[in-house]
Amino acid sequence: MNHIKAIAFDLYGTLFDVHSVIDQCEKRFPGRGREVSTVWRQKQLEYTWLRSLMNRYVTFEQATEDALRYTCKHLRLDLDEPACNTLCDAYLRLQSFPEVPAALRELRARGLKLAVLSNGSPHSIGAVVGNGGLRDEFDHLISVDPVRIFKPHDQAYALAERVFGLARGSILFVSSNAWDATGARYFGFPTCWINRGGGTFDEMGQAPDWELRGLDEVARLFDGAERNAPLA
Amino acid sequence: MNHIKAIAFDLYGTLFDVHSVIDQCEKRFPGRGREVSTVWRQKQLEYTWLRSLMNRYVTFEQATEDALRYTCKHLRLDLDEPACNTLCDAYLRLQSFPEVPAALRELRARGLKLAVLSNGSPHSIGAVVGNGGLRDEFDHLISVDPVRIFKPHDQAYALAERVFGLARGSILFVSSNAWDATGARYFGFPTCWINRGGGTFDEMGQAPDWELRGLDEVARLFDGAERNAPLA
Repeated sequence: MNHIKAIAFDLYGTLFDVHSVIDQCEKRFPGRGREVSTVWRQKQLEYTWLRSLMNRYVTFEQATEDALRYTCKHLRLDLDEPACNTLCDAYLRLQSFPEVPAALRELRARGLKLAVLSNGSPHSIGAVVGNGGLRDEFDHLISVDPVRIFKPHDQAYALAERVFGLARGSILFVSSNAWDATGARYFGFPTCWINRGGGTFDEMGQAPDWELRGLDEVARLFDGAERNAPLA
Repeated sequence: MNHIKAIAFDLYGTLFDVHSVIDQCEKRFPGRGREVSTVWRQKQLEYTWLRSLMNRYVTFEQATEDALRYTCKHLRLDLDEPACNTLCDAYLRLQSFPEVPAALRELRARGLKLAVLSNGSPHSIGAVVGNGGLRDEFDHLISVDPVRIFKPHDQAYALAERVFGLARGSILFVSSNAWDATGARYFGFPTCWINRGGGTFDEMGQAPDWELRGLDEVARLFDGAERNAPLA
């Protein structure tokens, strides 16, 4: 792994748990919190992909709010403006996965440059990372907002090359989202898929170079030659 | 509606019921047919959007097969090659919705030019329409395959203008898929959303010009001035 000089991490679902909004959803819609969170996340993703494909970019916050409005209409739940604001605000206060803070510190200690590369806006990324107490762990917080198209479009991944000033082959990309890991690998990043929940990778013609159970396993890739071997 | 000279119909989910594959799924995976069909359709759509966004086009048949493979892995169901072939073949033998044949004949009788505009390949569209006995109802079967990008990208919708030889404002677009109706409307087609199941339209900054309960209601748009008024 000597050729890897920097790591770009996906934010939502990779460093931070998007389903940590369940508590707020449950408070507002008792007994329906998990269902709301699941549909909301699915629609949020769909809206980023579809708007990119239609060339009708809006910020991630806007897509998130639109997805929440759809979700509540679809589930026949009443969403007033204060509730909408509270729930969207919860997306700025996500919980990081438990192993994340120590894992980031360990990777920094190895001299690697670290960045977030996220579909979130600069405001969202800053808020999530700051509220999670992780701002000092990153050299860069990279938002797709300047190129106005979401991952998995190539232009979004290309931002990491530009900001790090490194070629794609020397940037490790880390994501829990299989579609994101697929896009990153097509772009040309060596790619880790963090599969915490025993999920199934997508069938879009790519496989991750490494499939790991948590972020703490990323540092181990840099330990010894045997452990560094990518998947066949 | 005097300005409307032609109608372009989405195929999957609009003229033909994608969930008519449930019977075949149920035969292969007893008790799991509906679940398989639901995940399969969702992933099929995702793969068309994501591959378009990654600029990694494959045919709709390939995306359909990939989505089925994902679905069976995800649901821990064994899919051998004969079963895979049988189930993918079922996507070429979908049932049309009951009102569709008569509705198409009525629209043709009014002198309107009719086409299918589908993400399917020419082979798939021809097979589905032919197996459904509807080939004679259409002037054109338009596949996105020549432009190698799926709806809702503008280039896909633009094919209908080219094939009909008409400007977008004189082509009515009809779809049951809210994301498709959204893309069509951004493109500039007057757009009907066929909402058979009391679904919720997507929140991506567009609304359909008309929301109808079935294809039989499309002809009524051409009946009288009052009925022709688009939604506010």
